[in-house]
Amino acid sequence: MTRKPKPVKDSFVSMTELVLPNDTNTLNNLMGGRMMHLMDVAAAISAQRHSNRIVVTASVDNVSFREGIKLGSVITLEAQVTRAFSSSMEVHIDVWSEDIPSGTKVKSNEAFFTFVAVDQSGRPIDVPDAVPETATEQALFDGALRRRQLRLVLGGRMAPQEATELKALFDLVAQAAEDDTAS
Amino acid sequence: MTRKPKPVKDSFVSMTELVLPNDTNTLNNLMGGRMMHLMDVAAAISAQRHSNRIVVTASVDNVSFREGIKLGSVITLEAQVTRAFSSSMEVHIDVWSEDIPSGTKVKSNEAFFTFVAVDQSGRPIDVPDAVPETATEQALFDGALRRRQLRLVLGGRMAPQEATELKALFDLVAQAAEDDTAS
Amino acid sequence: MTRKPKPVKDSFVSMTELVLPNDTNTLNNLMGGRMMHLMDVAAAISAQRHSNRIVVTASVDNVSFREGIKLGSVITLEAQVTRAFSSSMEVHIDVWSEDIPSGTKVKSNEAFFTFVAVDQSGRPIDVPDAVPETATEQALFDGALRRRQLRLVLGGRMAPQEATELKALFDLVAQAAEDDTAS
Amino acid sequence: MTRKPKPVKDSFVSMTELVLPNDTNTLNNLMGGRMMHLMDVAAAISAQRHSNRIVVTASVDNVSFREGIKLGSVITLEAQVTRAFSSSMEVHIDVWSEDIPSGTKVKSNEAFFTFVAVDQSGRPIDVPDAVPETATEQALFDGALRRRQLRLVLGGRMAPQEATELKALFDLVAQAAEDDTAS
Amino acid sequence: MTRKPKPVKDSFVSMTELVLPNDTNTLNNLMGGRMMHLMDVAAAISAQRHSNRIVVTASVDNVSFREGIKLGSVITLEAQVTRAFSSSMEVHIDVWSEDIPSGTKVKSNEAFFTFVAVDQSGRPIDVPDAVPETATEQALFDGALRRRQLRLVLGGRMAPQEATELKALFDLVAQAAEDDTAS
Amino acid sequence: MTRKPKPVKDSFVSMTELVLPNDTNTLNNLMGGRMMHLMDVAAAISAQRHSNRIVVTASVDNVSFREGIKLGSVITLEAQVTRAFSSSMEVHIDVWSEDIPSGTKVKSNEAFFTFVAVDQSGRPIDVPDAVPETATEQALFDGALRRRQLRLVLGGRMAPQEATELKALFDLVAQAAEDDTAS
Repeated sequence: MTRKPKPVKDSFVSMTELVLPNDTNTLNNLMGGRMMHLMDVAAAISAQRHSNRIVVTASVDNVSFREGIKLGSVITLEAQVTRAFSSSMEVHIDVWSEDIPSGTKVKSNEAFFTFVAVDQSGRPIDVPDAVPETATEQALFDGALRRRQLRLVLGGRMAPQEATELKALFDLVAQAAEDDTAS
Repeated sequence: MTRKPKPVKDSFVSMTELVLPNDTNTLNNLMGGRMMHLMDVAAAISAQRHSNRIVVTASVDNVSFREGIKLGSVITLEAQVTRAFSSSMEVHIDVWSEDIPSGTKVKSNEAFFTFVAVDQSGRPIDVPDAVPETATEQALFDGALRRRQLRLVLGGRMAPQEATELKALFDLVAQAAEDDTAS
Repeated sequence: MTRKPKPVKDSFVSMTELVLPNDTNTLNNLMGGRMMHLMDVAAAISAQRHSNRIVVTASVDNVSFREGIKLGSVITLEAQVTRAFSSSMEVHIDVWSEDIPSGTKVKSNEAFFTFVAVDQSGRPIDVPDAVPETATEQALFDGALRRRQLRLVLGGRMAPQEATELKALFDLVAQAAEDDTAS
Repeated sequence: MTRKPKPVKDSFVSMTELVLPNDTNTLNNLMGGRMMHLMDVAAAISAQRHSNRIVVTASVDNVSFREGIKLGSVITLEAQVTRAFSSSMEVHIDVWSEDIPSGTKVKSNEAFFTFVAVDQSGRPIDVPDAVPETATEQALFDGALRRRQLRLVLGGRMAPQEATELKALFDLVAQAAEDDTAS
Repeated sequence: MTRKPKPVKDSFVSMTELVLPNDTNTLNNLMGGRMMHLMDVAAAISAQRHSNRIVVTASVDNVSFREGIKLGSVITLEAQVTRAFSSSMEVHIDVWSEDIPSGTKVKSNEAFFTFVAVDQSGRPIDVPDAVPETATEQALFDGALRRRQLRLVLGGRMAPQEATELKALFDLVAQAAEDDTAS
Repeated sequence: MTRKPKPVKDSFVSMTELVLPNDTNTLNNLMGGRMMHLMDVAAAISAQRHSNRIVVTASVDNVSFREGIKLGSVITLEAQVTRAFSSSMEVHIDVWSEDIPSGTKVKSNEAFFTFVAVDQSGRPIDVPDAVPETATEQALFDGALRRRQLRLVLGGRMAPQEATELKALFDLVAQAAEDDTAS
């Protein structure tokens, strides 16, 4: 089957949620696990839109949590596919939290999830190529290869020396290592 | 306050859950987001046990999802603190899934979550040192520094050249980089 | 307090949800009550954005349910304030349902909810005027007065003869009544 | 199939619920959407009892929300079919809220939901006639035709001039219209 | 404080619930734990109505589960206080399950829960006496003393020889014991 | 089919849960019904592990609730099969609650649940014998017969005089009865 390319923006998903009591910890802040659950749902819908397939979560990149998000806050998740690789798709998610009475809205998280499209028996199946159109989309598309190599190295499925894209990131490490060797 | 060291095994948590219909996707498999939610709860309880404090999720390392876990399966999560750094604790989580009728039990996931202990106002507060006692605990303790550096580099809060522990992992990359430079 | 007018589009909310097993009836279709619950949350967030206040649901207009929405479907709710009256706001909600594998997306519902902005003691408090900017927004703004009169008449809080805006809708009824009287 | 008439009282449903934390908004009051969810469940069970069929929600009439209902309150919903039309049934729902410590019980809502009975393929199927026996049941039965016409007019499926039952309601409107025309 | 007696029927609670997917096990039957959860809520509301107080569950008598209750069934719980003892109340719960399409309704469970009325600090507080009025209510009232003794003996808080009411139940055991001793 | 004996310890289940807002009553204490729900899930998993079968709850013995368990507490449930009888298994559950900030952990409940193993059609099916290995396991194994007789007597399925094991428990009752008769 030929994979017909689709613009990444067709996979855009916006999801808005209220932080309810059961979502919060003893400090009345949204629990990290609940946030990841919402990210997974938003990102999965985005990957489904790109592929018109059932998708399963394959991996989640490192996620950091900053400020606590209070009970009663409104959180907005925006998810969009960045790039497709055979049967897998990387999805970028931005999360904002909004305190209505004070009218403040801050970016609280950012994450990359990877999904695999599967058929009814759960076997991987190819998806359309994802085509970036704006400068931001292009930057996310370009970085996807490097993030993919990091995932494979961290997952023990790629030897570090094959991860050529990672070199940009670690050139300074390499240089430092060289310096150490030299001295 | 002096931080009295505690053995890491005192923070051990075992959590068993049934996969219920609302936890599953269209293929009747556990959704990745639900799994991360459970991991977060188990790991938070472990960090609470170590610190006797309220804890908040600070970060989650890269997590991979392998085999689908079926509706009706029993999942067991085992969480234990690996190491403490001032107010933060790294927690290691192993997840097994068990299909009762066939009697099979397989390891399905492994993850590292980091938590920060906070006081009632949400300000970070120091926690006891975590003391490894077995060889496995020691290995997790030793690796914690390297994983912490990777988190800081990925989060843009540490320059790669300062991440001395990461060099062990990327020496081959460094070597490859050197070879490229040489040729 | 002077109410500073705000464009209605500032209150726009988009909410995307997956239809999960517990949301469905014996035919595996989304239950009407669950749909109304989601509409209420989306519309309340929209009214909160317009007023920067806590809001409480005051009324729901007649809602019709057409096609069943299947388990696993993606539903998108779009809510936006149409007009403000002292402390109350009318919110218009459109709902689409999307069957990912077939790539079909149909409009499944449309509704009007009314909210009242309240202070911390639950007392009504004035909200900014809502300013329509597009032709569609203007049409919704214009119709809001008529719908408000219908609500008041149906709620027994306005005598039908005072509902001057309703006359446009019922002129033909009036005409028929006149004819009956005449004959 | 002949539809054997059944007394409306056979469809009576009483449902009691505790208002739990996740059901409430920032003021600790029951959210309107949660209330409608409960109304839909109670009314659906009533329609199922009348028809011995799977039923789907077809429409909800205008619902008003008065006093806030506090966290920890007990709410009682009473639902009963008022009248059947071919495959559809109108259900009347009364809601009381009860504050146990103060011993107060007030009527908080009243609503009409309409359901359609369907077969296993989701196709509409005729239901028994509903027979009122008390004066209250007769009044609800009589009003059902007028409410049905209003639903059809509001849903754009009936021209106002065909809604003969609505005339009783809008005679004063008609009279006012006539007066306007006369002047 | 004088405890003003109240008729037991004032504490009657009827609760109707739909069996939803997350309530069921792998055989699509209602899980026993979910059933007990519903019993506890219905019985607590009944005890609250009798005492006009916050109540906490003190104990549950032996409960048996007979036939499985299918997904989509309607379950009806009827709870009523049987007798009050100082600050505690015994509540009797009957559960019926109804399969709508077949029109069958069977009694599926029966249970006794005991609650203690407490003040805002959680301290036990006396409740009104409960007055039986019908023969059935009188029989439940009379049996309450025997069941209370069995609870105290099983809970290790009463020596068997003090449980005079239990003797009626175990006279035959006593007789058999005597016979054994005699032979 | 021969039932191959299995050590009871193979059925051990440890389950840890956080008490969340929706699990609590107006005093912010865990509701009894929620506790029983968790006990049922933990015990069912234990019985599934012993039998490698689907299991259904058959009965719950008298359960007492002592101290309230606060919102935010950690509860640990430990379940293990005590003895098997043809197709049924008795499971013993211990529950601890832990208040993290104060570092206190107290035993809050103890219960016995009985499950029946069934095949895919819901018919009872024999399970392996359960073999106790420690003194504690042996004591629970020995008591299982007496508890089973009490269940049967209370459920009206065994005449008290056939419940020979219950005599140990009620010998003093018997003696007292004898004394009464004698005097």
